[in-house]
Amino acid sequence: MRKILVIGAGKSASYLIKYLLDKSEQEELLVMVGDVNFSNAKKLIGNHENAQAIMLDVFDKRSRQNAIQNSDIVISMLPARFHVEVAKDCISFNKNMVTASYISEEMQKLDKAATEKGLIFMNEIGVDPGIDHMSAMQVIDRIRDKGGHIILFESFTGGLVAPESDNNLWNYKFTWNPRNVVVAGQGGAAKFLQEGTYKYIPYNRLFRRTEFLDIEGYGRFEGYANRDSLKYQSAYGLDSAKTLYRGTMRRVGFSRAWNMFVQLGMTDDEYTIDDSENMSYRDFVNAFLPYSPTDSVELKFRHALKIDQDDIVWDKLIELDIFSNTKMVELKKATPAQILQKILEESWTLNDNEKDMIVMYHKFGYELEGKKYQIDSTMVTLGEDRIYTAMAKTVGLPVAIATLAILNEKIITPGVQMPITKEVYEPILKELEEYGIVFKETEVPYLGYNPLNL
Amino acid sequence: MRKILVIGAGKSASYLIKYLLDKSEQEELLVMVGDVNFSNAKKLIGNHENAQAIMLDVFDKRSRQNAIQNSDIVISMLPARFHVEVAKDCISFNKNMVTASYISEEMQKLDKAATEKGLIFMNEIGVDPGIDHMSAMQVIDRIRDKGGHIILFESFTGGLVAPESDNNLWNYKFTWNPRNVVVAGQGGAAKFLQEGTYKYIPYNRLFRRTEFLDIEGYGRFEGYANRDSLKYQSAYGLDSAKTLYRGTMRRVGFSRAWNMFVQLGMTDDEYTIDDSENMSYRDFVNAFLPYSPTDSVELKFRHALKIDQDDIVWDKLIELDIFSNTKMVELKKATPAQILQKILEESWTLNDNEKDMIVMYHKFGYELEGKKYQIDSTMVTLGEDRIYTAMAKTVGLPVAIATLAILNEKIITPGVQMPITKEVYEPILKELEEYGIVFKETEVPYLGYNPLNL
Repeated sequence: MRKILVIGAGKSASYLIKYLLDKSEQEELLVMVGDVNFSNAKKLIGNHENAQAIMLDVFDKRSRQNAIQNSDIVISMLPARFHVEVAKDCISFNKNMVTASYISEEMQKLDKAATEKGLIFMNEIGVDPGIDHMSAMQVIDRIRDKGGHIILFESFTGGLVAPESDNNLWNYKFTWNPRNVVVAGQGGAAKFLQEGTYKYIPYNRLFRRTEFLDIEGYGRFEGYANRDSLKYQSAYGLDSAKTLYRGTMRRVGFSRAWNMFVQLGMTDDEYTIDDSENMSYRDFVNAFLPYSPTDSVELKFRHALKIDQDDIVWDKLIELDIFSNTKMVELKKATPAQILQKILEESWTLNDNEKDMIVMYHKFGYELEGKKYQIDSTMVTLGEDRIYTAMAKTVGLPVAIATLAILNEKIITPGVQMPITKEVYEPILKELEEYGIVFKETEVPYLGYNPLNL
Repeated sequence: MRKILVIGAGKSASYLIKYLLDKSEQEELLVMVGDVNFSNAKKLIGNHENAQAIMLDVFDKRSRQNAIQNSDIVISMLPARFHVEVAKDCISFNKNMVTASYISEEMQKLDKAATEKGLIFMNEIGVDPGIDHMSAMQVIDRIRDKGGHIILFESFTGGLVAPESDNNLWNYKFTWNPRNVVVAGQGGAAKFLQEGTYKYIPYNRLFRRTEFLDIEGYGRFEGYANRDSLKYQSAYGLDSAKTLYRGTMRRVGFSRAWNMFVQLGMTDDEYTIDDSENMSYRDFVNAFLPYSPTDSVELKFRHALKIDQDDIVWDKLIELDIFSNTKMVELKKATPAQILQKILEESWTLNDNEKDMIVMYHKFGYELEGKKYQIDSTMVTLGEDRIYTAMAKTVGLPVAIATLAILNEKIITPGVQMPITKEVYEPILKELEEYGIVFKETEVPYLGYNPLNL
């Protein structure tokens, strides 16, 4: 039996563990699931005979090192900041490792040591990052192989609610970490490249500079820019591309409504409000509006943001019950972002029977023999239920497939890696198709941002 | 002869040194002016026989300590971050010290050592902070002495251009550090207290939440909120005040126009633009607007900020020549704020014959025997020329007067101090009046933010 150690039995581990257990007989696997919360680990493996739940506190060096030493490969599904301790142990005990997280600076520093020992540390192999890398590089390499030259690359991902469960005015529910949604876009201007020119969008304009994206059968979406669209420019070999844009997808109208919170300062996570515990939702909103002895919070809000009487964004606020005088914040010394998150969670949490959805949209513009072309590639994955979500599926399956491929020596390049080479993405994308994770390509006229060809 | 060491012969030292030299005969003073640039020091003292210029590099411990040891009192006019090294030497050699800067945490930590040695470290005794403290505390103490209870305190200061030199559409020129003006308000939400409620304004709304202030003979001004209006709440003894607001004064319309730069992200100082050196002003503006092969930068700007055809803010932009295709940024790897500063400095620099102006406006609301009252107190000081500016006068004179008062043992309370006690502010405010720095008080009906008394 080959031993796979999965550290962290959180939300994203369900599909991953299911995949490995389904293959465990045929592939001779023993799946050990370690979590600081033993019952979490136990729940995910059920009574499967090729599985074992262990109590594993990543801060307890001895139990961590014992578990790692006793495995053949390690999957870390911990929050990203904890990977590096696991990675150092993997260096010590000569184990390969897989994570779905961005490569941190500390992780990158282990590249030399891993390479020297012939170890594979595969990272960024979830959905975003992960499936985005693989599906993009597959098309980029194909275009290059036939002599094309990429001039435009745009890539959008969204974690949304499935159409059948899409029943609020925001067309949005939390399907992952709510906090990341509330503070999204903060911490610096968004930077991207449009027709050869660097463009910058400050946070306070981010949600008003969206673009529309249509996916057949699913209708229209909108995208807003990520912080750094140029992050993978070199890794993807796109140094001479004229347009580079990475973004986040929402249903149309979400960003314009979200911008109300941004404008008033309700997404700020940098300071705490002293008496937040005893505030009503209405008091919270009022803290961002001028004092008046007579005017209502509602009218001050409308006036501050110039919201017309018949604007749909108003109904979105009412739906959240954000002007309630009776609902209390109850959080001690909370930041505006924490309070807003609490209010949103009351409205935007998936019910037991509701499903999530992952959408991805790539645009590839290229030149071939003097002509310009464009390929649009889209992917939609729906969740099955609250445990086997689209998020868990699209994060967990690539991790699981890569882990098995490393065990079976189909992925062999050592070092701190991400899945951008054919060796990695070809077999994984192929297998993902069996699970319904399929990209649909269409050729469209190349327009870029220069439709008149001037 | 009593030796006064002035460290730093920058812009703000002119009036300070003039005052001390004018008094030097009568008071038996030798004024030693130390600067890393010897000719700066030399220029300010001329051929005065009771003055001496010395070369003093604050980073050169030996020359710094020699100069301090050889003095009877030390004035540091260095940038605030350098005071603490001087202060530590003053502890070592038992010297009193005066600065016009905010008390830093490190300075505050010296309070115990200074107090034990009976040394006076007087800080925040320029204009803002300085004259604002003294003039506010004089009225607050007077109200208290007659049994009144402060319920509202608002305080605004502005460094502006004198009416006779006010000849641009912004009614503004740089009279102090331009950088501070460009990044003003950044780094966190503004917090203040209105009628018992904490209010928060994020940076992107700061310049749209102004209030008007009228000064007789000088017309109308506007004020926007400082970061922390509650900073001196306890020091001033205003813990039970219902309204506390500290702000910055500009001429009416400045903030609405400035907000255009804020909205587009042109005041951001957190990232650099790679090819800034080779950008025209127009390219710089265009970096914050969407790409278009045909639409003009002007129309994209108007559209992004919804600027009407006949809006005066447009003329303010044109006056700055900010859409110029030929004027180049020329700064390497500059932040947006640095580039904007360069563009503004071309239009907003005082000419040789132009004068600056300092304005201050306090509002004191109080209750006395069940009735509510309000006193408004205003001060305007005009500069004489580019050397003897209103800024240098209002910063330098209180520093100089305090220094002499300490030497003459009229100010005697030891420790790290700011000028909020009668011992300090009474004699200084009295003497400032001889130099034309006079506050004019008017009693007005108390309105607060509750004019209907609900």
